[in-house]
Amino acid sequence: MELIYTGKTKDVFKLENELYLLKFKDDVTGENGVFDPGANTVGLTIDGAGLAGLKLTSFFYSKLNELEVPTHYVDANFEEQTMTVKPATVFGKGLEVICRFKAVGSFLRRYGAYATEGQDLDAFVEVTIKDDDRQDPPISEDALAMLNLLTHEEYAILKERTIEIAKFVGAELAKKDLTLYDIKLEFGRDAKTNEIILIDEISGGNMRAYKGATYIEPLELEQIMLAK
Amino acid sequence: MELIYTGKTKDVFKLENELYLLKFKDDVTGENGVFDPGANTVGLTIDGAGLAGLKLTSFFYSKLNELEVPTHYVDANFEEQTMTVKPATVFGKGLEVICRFKAVGSFLRRYGAYATEGQDLDAFVEVTIKDDDRQDPPISEDALAMLNLLTHEEYAILKERTIEIAKFVGAELAKKDLTLYDIKLEFGRDAKTNEIILIDEISGGNMRAYKGATYIEPLELEQIMLAK
Repeated sequence: MELIYTGKTKDVFKLENELYLLKFKDDVTGENGVFDPGANTVGLTIDGAGLAGLKLTSFFYSKLNELEVPTHYVDANFEEQTMTVKPATVFGKGLEVICRFKAVGSFLRRYGAYATEGQDLDAFVEVTIKDDDRQDPPISEDALAMLNLLTHEEYAILKERTIEIAKFVGAELAKKDLTLYDIKLEFGRDAKTNEIILIDEISGGNMRAYKGATYIEPLELEQIMLAK
Repeated sequence: MELIYTGKTKDVFKLENELYLLKFKDDVTGENGVFDPGANTVGLTIDGAGLAGLKLTSFFYSKLNELEVPTHYVDANFEEQTMTVKPATVFGKGLEVICRFKAVGSFLRRYGAYATEGQDLDAFVEVTIKDDDRQDPPISEDALAMLNLLTHEEYAILKERTIEIAKFVGAELAKKDLTLYDIKLEFGRDAKTNEIILIDEISGGNMRAYKGATYIEPLELEQIMLAK
């Protein structure tokens, strides 16, 4: 088993059978010892963070596979803290796709002249470039096409899948009386079929959830969602 | 004649005949005494800047009206340094529409991971919100529709007109051996017909022009374009 990439929160190994293994670490992103899912540096280590993230990811991905939404997920091993996935290539150096149901965060910082905090948004989708040096800038459909990152046809698929997955996650949260404000997803191309598939994780750090007016921290969110 | 608005570079008067008068000032935007068309504050006063901006605006708008591209322009009076325009309402608090033929400026700052400086862009259109406090953020077609600033149908018109006007300006510059890198336009709704029309000015400060590899300053650009 060959280590091919050491990430901020996950290590990636190549398996013999053309699949890959993601090992979830207890390192979480943040700054000055404070957990911040949006940060670009590892801020601290929290015992159990990797396993909780893996369990929630496995929870969502198993259901998405059952629903026949295309993903990279094969299975998970909680004892080893690993997840087996199909190989996929990312768009350029990676894109993040955000789906918003409430106006908060960077949306509000940009469009506060026309939106009020917490205002309903109708599953609004936007794409950002993964580029730490340039603060992960938003990018339009036209720019994605012009820079050869996604065709217009692929963008339409990406947007449709994002809304479908975000609504599915929102419905799962609603079963625990939680409200999904926004969620950040990552997609890639299936290395074999070239199909657009959901990749990476779907853990507490990928979304903003509220219980009533109270923001639920990622680790608490994972506990609530995984409680029997 | 009633003064109804004092802008950074223009004053606006209401006329008796339902038209408006824009008085071009010699104040130009910039910081620390340096002319910067993108700045949000008046930086300095340059003798003749207002008249040169008006003359170039009148040059482009007269031709656009002849081409039956809808604009707010009626006529200009160089002695009074004024331009008569039809009333129009802006989208929200105002939008700027940028058309790019070369990758420079904020486009390159955002997408430098996928574009090289000066790379050709195929009349790429993007919209920014006029919001000094939020550094004029870019906004997507979907966000414009969701925030009720523009419908998708209006966006399509805006984009088509922007490309048409930008290509027209680029062709005029090419007659003087200049290359248009990008241009910033403003549109509004005709107060009578609700039609989407080009508003504001088209002067040196609205565009980046190069002669070979040399950037041409706005005032020099105006001199070159207006020379017989």
